Amino acid sequence: MNEFQLIDRFFAREDNPDSVKVGIGDDGAVLATNNGRDLVVVTDTMVEGVHFVCGQPASALGHKILSVNLSDVAAMGAEPDWVTLNLVLPEVNSNWLEEFAQGFFELADRYSVVLVGGDTTHGPLSVTATVGGWVPHGEALCRSKAKVGDHLYVSGALGHAALGLSLLSEKRISINDQHNCFLRRLLWPEPRISLGSLLRPLASAAIDISDGLIADLEHITLASGDLGALIHESMIPIEPGFEEFCSHSAILTMALTGGDDYELCFSVDSKQTGAVVRLSRHLNLPLTLIGHVDSRPGVRVIDAQGKYRQINSPGYLHHW
Amino acid sequence: MNEFQLIDRFFAREDNPDSVKVGIGDDGAVLATNNGRDLVVVTDTMVEGVHFVCGQPASALGHKILSVNLSDVAAMGAEPDWVTLNLVLPEVNSNWLEEFAQGFFELADRYSVVLVGGDTTHGPLSVTATVGGWVPHGEALCRSKAKVGDHLYVSGALGHAALGLSLLSEKRISINDQHNCFLRRLLWPEPRISLGSLLRPLASAAIDISDGLIADLEHITLASGDLGALIHESMIPIEPGFEEFCSHSAILTMALTGGDDYELCFSVDSKQTGAVVRLSRHLNLPLTLIGHVDSRPGVRVIDAQGKYRQINSPGYLHHW
Repeated sequence: MNEFQLIDRFFAREDNPDSVKVGIGDDGAVLATNNGRDLVVVTDTMVEGVHFVCGQPASALGHKILSVNLSDVAAMGAEPDWVTLNLVLPEVNSNWLEEFAQGFFELADRYSVVLVGGDTTHGPLSVTATVGGWVPHGEALCRSKAKVGDHLYVSGALGHAALGLSLLSEKRISINDQHNCFLRRLLWPEPRISLGSLLRPLASAAIDISDGLIADLEHITLASGDLGALIHESMIPIEPGFEEFCSHSAILTMALTGGDDYELCFSVDSKQTGAVVRLSRHLNLPLTLIGHVDSRPGVRVIDAQGKYRQINSPGYLHHW
Repeated sequence: MNEFQLIDRFFAREDNPDSVKVGIGDDGAVLATNNGRDLVVVTDTMVEGVHFVCGQPASALGHKILSVNLSDVAAMGAEPDWVTLNLVLPEVNSNWLEEFAQGFFELADRYSVVLVGGDTTHGPLSVTATVGGWVPHGEALCRSKAKVGDHLYVSGALGHAALGLSLLSEKRISINDQHNCFLRRLLWPEPRISLGSLLRPLASAAIDISDGLIADLEHITLASGDLGALIHESMIPIEPGFEEFCSHSAILTMALTGGDDYELCFSVDSKQTGAVVRLSRHLNLPLTLIGHVDSRPGVRVIDAQGKYRQINSPGYLHHW
């Protein structure tokens, strides 16, 4: 049973009150509050040995637990406001805590996110953050409104974080090798907050890429009524630099299934191509057309020769 | 270093924006939202072996993680609305999850609290819940507004949960001994939601008793400007039934320092005594006068002979 089946089976319910505009099953929840804005709430836990390696700089962990949550806020088109933080710590190590707080607050301050509460507990190292944000009433971006024919885009470049993790696990780089751009992408992902809020009038659906492009895109196509998507291998944005470490085919697999890049994947009506180009220029951030939504269920990847690529594992899944 | 010193040192900051009415250091955060209501956010984590014992019924754990958060919401005088849930699980055990969900939703439904999101992760068992609630603008109950001369009250009876834990650790009862009322108080605490919201026009300060009466009352007196409190041992509400298991002196110590009862402790202007009596009758819940706020820092307990009681450990503290 994977994480999504588990949630569906034991925790998803159908009878949400009217104030809950979006409940379980999207990047975050959306709650109407009668003040012209909807409250968006997202939460994520990171456990040592599962989401981060032993010995990871504490500042990077402080950054990342907030960043992965801000990435969910961005995918909802919301602006973040406050955060609560739950720390489970095996011991009090002042240096570690100071570094953690420094990484956390550096990012929080950059987006004016205020730490308003939390708790600390003794136990095996894990961290949970819950972030609240705001979006104009009814304008939250969801996974469920992609339409057949919509163009599909991703921000930035993909595969970097997965390559960083792979280099780390093969001991080709060390956890302290701060100059390695792939490790930096793994440890210090940048949430696409500005992009998310500017996509509100433009995108029909959006998600952040945490589990891998194919897996996350599948969340969009499924939630939008069992639609499908066709994406073109040659259009996947990959930045140069990987050649020193792996083949083009390997980086492509990481881009498609690796996850942890925290870029946004979004669908846009095909008439809006010009607006996406202007947005990309305005943000100075690549927004790359990678394919389109169609009516055949599933996500298919086509190579330059027009052949379907065989995908063995669509992305990162917590399996028990 | 204890939990509170740790938070102060690494995470408390002074420059909160105006929208944050109450930040770190109260039962919950209070955020102004411009719709006549303030958003109250509370969060708590429970770790196996620290906050609950191995083999505890999953339904009780599902109940308690929500209950301890609702208790914080009650202490702020707010009405709960939504909850997010983060589960870290060593394995997927369908029976366990079904029971956990049953205990969780039974309580959630009783207070119309909607589960809106969360995540599940593989790792050592721990659960985190974050609850959002609402309170009319400016009316949240805080720890910081007790005044010299205010009367101090507690709801219900104290010491039951600590006695339950003690009986359990001494193996005088088993974790499945559901008929033992002390074990029930430990495993199935009832949040005082109605009391909390009805205290809004009445109480000057409030807190829920999670760490022990003295320790939690000290949070009120300290936050209210380094005031103090005098409480009368003979007035502490203790229900009969303990005599089968321990002495009166032992249950009194548990009532003063044991914690985990999740009753409310609150201060009220001395002119409002009649209103508290009427509220108690209306709720059919004992609200017992136990002492008053004074200007001498610290919480002192006086016995029937007028002697000060020596308190060795004021309550439950996470020490590392």
